[in-house]
Amino acid sequence: MARSHSRSHGSPQAGGLWLYGVHAVKAALANPSRMKRRCVLTLSAAEAIGTTLLSRVAVETADAERIARLVPSGAVHQGVALQCEPLPRRDLEEVLHPATRQTILVLDQVADPHNVGAILRSAAAFEAAAVIVQDRHAPPESGTLAKAASGGLDLVPYITVVNIARALEQLGNAGFWRVALSGEGEQPLAQAVAGGNIAFVLGSEGSGLRRLVRARCDSSAFIAVGQRMDSLNVSNAAAIALYEWRRHVDLTGAISIPE
Amino acid sequence: MARSHSRSHGSPQAGGLWLYGVHAVKAALANPSRMKRRCVLTLSAAEAIGTTLLSRVAVETADAERIARLVPSGAVHQGVALQCEPLPRRDLEEVLHPATRQTILVLDQVADPHNVGAILRSAAAFEAAAVIVQDRHAPPESGTLAKAASGGLDLVPYITVVNIARALEQLGNAGFWRVALSGEGEQPLAQAVAGGNIAFVLGSEGSGLRRLVRARCDSSAFIAVGQRMDSLNVSNAAAIALYEWRRHVDLTGAISIPE
Repeated sequence: MARSHSRSHGSPQAGGLWLYGVHAVKAALANPSRMKRRCVLTLSAAEAIGTTLLSRVAVETADAERIARLVPSGAVHQGVALQCEPLPRRDLEEVLHPATRQTILVLDQVADPHNVGAILRSAAAFEAAAVIVQDRHAPPESGTLAKAASGGLDLVPYITVVNIARALEQLGNAGFWRVALSGEGEQPLAQAVAGGNIAFVLGSEGSGLRRLVRARCDSSAFIAVGQRMDSLNVSNAAAIALYEWRRHVDLTGAISIPE
Repeated sequence: MARSHSRSHGSPQAGGLWLYGVHAVKAALANPSRMKRRCVLTLSAAEAIGTTLLSRVAVETADAERIARLVPSGAVHQGVALQCEPLPRRDLEEVLHPATRQTILVLDQVADPHNVGAILRSAAAFEAAAVIVQDRHAPPESGTLAKAASGGLDLVPYITVVNIARALEQLGNAGFWRVALSGEGEQPLAQAVAGGNIAFVLGSEGSGLRRLVRARCDSSAFIAVGQRMDSLNVSNAAAIALYEWRRHVDLTGAISIPE
């Protein structure tokens, strides 16, 4: 049971993890939980990031060609790469504060790091409390994920759990209204977002939500689309759900847990 | 001026274009404007696509390894690749039918094919009338773009124009209310979407909307987000705009052009 002893996302890497891109690296430098090793960057990237953040790490200047060799081929590194450790794992209990009106995204086997990264970015923008994924079916922390998240990986708790259904039970016990997003949902999204604390549950694009995951939700909602294209990209669906939640909170200004 | 004589997107390719992925290929096969050459696919992909669509093209069965060699390395081809021609160019006039309540997305220098593809997918889902891009600063048709669009490339007119500002003038003359989406917008998105025909104008993630493009818009709108992350992925912003437009149309059920 080596996994249960692991205290960080993804497999341990001898060389640590390389993050790149100005937003991703800035957020990682600003995150006190992120163990940094060294930052390799161009002079103009150093100017963009600023000395306050750079004082937190060993800094090495280099030209763009050298930085390109530290990151995956073709990666848009914007002149900066940060060698660091994956974030320590966080537990779901730590982030639940139901009295403060929270929203949480639960991803059931969404595997693409671009999609999960974009979801972390939207989660940060709309101030979601966490993004929950299943450890065996989620992208590990990587430069690709962090770049797509544009800083969101170091802003929003990215919580891996062994069992999504159990995490949903836990959310239910904590007073979260659990809404499964699906093309076959029972009601339009705007009606499903009744205020209070909400967990939106999204499935993989290929197979959708698994039945046992769907069964742990309180309701299901669809995003009304036309006939020609019956599904949205999962990160777009997540952004719309967060937007609707935020709109509802701004309109009502109060917590009201649905019956 | 070779470009002005070209009648298709992107540079002419001696081998044609290779599209891949079940949704992208199905939409291309169903599109009468798409000139098809041949479809190389596995037996199980053939079953997923069906004989009706496959009767429109020369078909060759192959194993997954062979198909992988026809598409970019690492591409998720799902057992099918279609060799075809880029779509013929379409003119903006062709798609404008202001009496039918339309929405159009205008992309100012959004270059990433994953983002533009995801935008085409959302445009198809929410039944947008077109996606307009500037020919020199937009991704050409490619397998990557089509895969991210999940069929949207063959469902929604992807219109390239020489000059975005001129296209906005044309849209204004046709009765479209032109809304620039920007973090510095004047009003929240929900207020800017006043019904009627709307063109949403989105800029590149790096530099945002250019001033001369912004100047051709009737209003500007922001999507309310928190302090920690000030911008959304452009495809997520587009999806939210389309969702808000659709929500408004469903609520009001009538055309009302803003004053």
